[in-house]
Amino acid sequence: MVLPPDATLADVGEFGLIAALVEQFGTDDQVLVGPGDDAAVLRIRHGHVVVSTDLMVEGRHFRRDWASAEDVGHRAAAQNLSDINAMGGRGTHLTIGLAAPADLPAAWALDFARGFSQECAEVGATVVGGDLTRADQVVISVTVLGRCTQAPVLRSGAQPGDVLALAGRQGWAAGGLAVLGRGFRSPRVLVEAYRRPRPPYAQGQAAAEAGATALIDVSDGLLAEAGHVAVASGVAIDVRRDAFEVPEPLHAVGAALGADPMEFILAGGDDHALLATFPGTGSVPEGWQVIGAVAEGEGVTVDGASYDGSTGWTHF
Amino acid sequence: MVLPPDATLADVGEFGLIAALVEQFGTDDQVLVGPGDDAAVLRIRHGHVVVSTDLMVEGRHFRRDWASAEDVGHRAAAQNLSDINAMGGRGTHLTIGLAAPADLPAAWALDFARGFSQECAEVGATVVGGDLTRADQVVISVTVLGRCTQAPVLRSGAQPGDVLALAGRQGWAAGGLAVLGRGFRSPRVLVEAYRRPRPPYAQGQAAAEAGATALIDVSDGLLAEAGHVAVASGVAIDVRRDAFEVPEPLHAVGAALGADPMEFILAGGDDHALLATFPGTGSVPEGWQVIGAVAEGEGVTVDGASYDGSTGWTHF
Repeated sequence: MVLPPDATLADVGEFGLIAALVEQFGTDDQVLVGPGDDAAVLRIRHGHVVVSTDLMVEGRHFRRDWASAEDVGHRAAAQNLSDINAMGGRGTHLTIGLAAPADLPAAWALDFARGFSQECAEVGATVVGGDLTRADQVVISVTVLGRCTQAPVLRSGAQPGDVLALAGRQGWAAGGLAVLGRGFRSPRVLVEAYRRPRPPYAQGQAAAEAGATALIDVSDGLLAEAGHVAVASGVAIDVRRDAFEVPEPLHAVGAALGADPMEFILAGGDDHALLATFPGTGSVPEGWQVIGAVAEGEGVTVDGASYDGSTGWTHF
Repeated sequence: MVLPPDATLADVGEFGLIAALVEQFGTDDQVLVGPGDDAAVLRIRHGHVVVSTDLMVEGRHFRRDWASAEDVGHRAAAQNLSDINAMGGRGTHLTIGLAAPADLPAAWALDFARGFSQECAEVGATVVGGDLTRADQVVISVTVLGRCTQAPVLRSGAQPGDVLALAGRQGWAAGGLAVLGRGFRSPRVLVEAYRRPRPPYAQGQAAAEAGATALIDVSDGLLAEAGHVAVASGVAIDVRRDAFEVPEPLHAVGAALGADPMEFILAGGDDHALLATFPGTGSVPEGWQVIGAVAEGEGVTVDGASYDGSTGWTHF
């Protein structure tokens, strides 16, 4: 379907846009009924199905002037696929709810869907349904189904004596967001890290197979997520600053904005890195970096002391 | 958890509210991991999993002054469970995304969750996860998973010679919405039908078992849904006015508002009635009413002629 370049959602109409969107999405042999009926129908092998839902709100989780529609599509898919990664599984099927003003360019919705679909292709996942309606601001709701080939790894299994480890880039997206917030567009590598996160999709299952005792993805900030693990597991977690080599672009941003670059690493989300605990350094698989330790007690410390900077994102 | 009666979402905070919400939801023996981790984990028996997503936007799909939070919860759940009903299945597990202004009373969210949970109990379904974030207006996104015990019934199977049949109340909710729109609160029975629809949850599976060739739920309006079946199946559908006995309260509303009460029946959604086609009157199960016929051709007619009233809801 070819849309006029300046067509809005109101011009194209619900069913016209849905038809154009569905063309963006592929299918797979588990999808018996895809988009277009009252519900999608999936053929599921006996086993564990993992389910997660996330919302993204314009002006809060993304800005249309800070990221292209395709970027927002990549981010929306990545954020959800990452939740399945954080259980030690892999996303398989997704639904998208899109609420948007009537004057939203239809091309924005199509570009969003293309980016979303491209990100899903990274793990072989398929969009199987959705809903489209009108609202004052763009709200994107995604639900992802996934599979674990072994027992899912929860937040609650960390044990005193475990080591804390990280997979994936951390702090890059927060650095990118900070420069965008000041009206800059560089360092380009950080802005791109914010616009198109690269979650370590292979590392969730790798951690599970290596015997990770707890696993979570970093979306609210590294220390905040360590805090979730500490509370759920009933343990204390200490993060070591010297475990991180601050990448050059974060040094540059810190200097330009008068900020401590370590803040981006300790409080940043949006990279969708994975944080895990393992029974000992010997069990930490390749691609993971030991950044701290688990002990008896409660709370999160940095280098053994309480941390007084921001620990991450607050929703209300 | 007891919240101060005037607490807002901002007062209670994301994690406080989530804890209070989760208390509203039960669990079942298929739920291995419920709300609180990166994703929920379900034990699925080998077979077909049916998935659907719907959005509800404040000011468009509901008004807080026209329905209580508990009512909105009932409606949000009913609308989604009905999509599974319309495949011939039964909803089993749901996720809820709630985007809301920071000044939303926390009690509204809790009452919403209670109504949602009560409606889910009608079919034995369980809430297993969700997301909560801030937005300018309330946007509710629900994803439902369900099961079919036989092959799902699609929109596309209607055949010339089939009869068209309806299960459940039709037009009542539209009548209720019309009086609310004029600032009235009666007839009470219609307003209640709008606030708490009673979808015929047992009739989806009954239709499938009786050999229904097509099945859809009436959410966009009776003629609009008949149109979806006609297009998907490549057939013509005729609806007969004399198949309907207009209930007394709809006559009263029609007289009061100067409207043809048949409009509420032909164009109304929101009751979540089921519309199906069957191979002949002999195969129509109890609880269904024959309201028309399927023929070769295309399009939807009323008493053999084109219909010039509204056929239902337009999203953009």
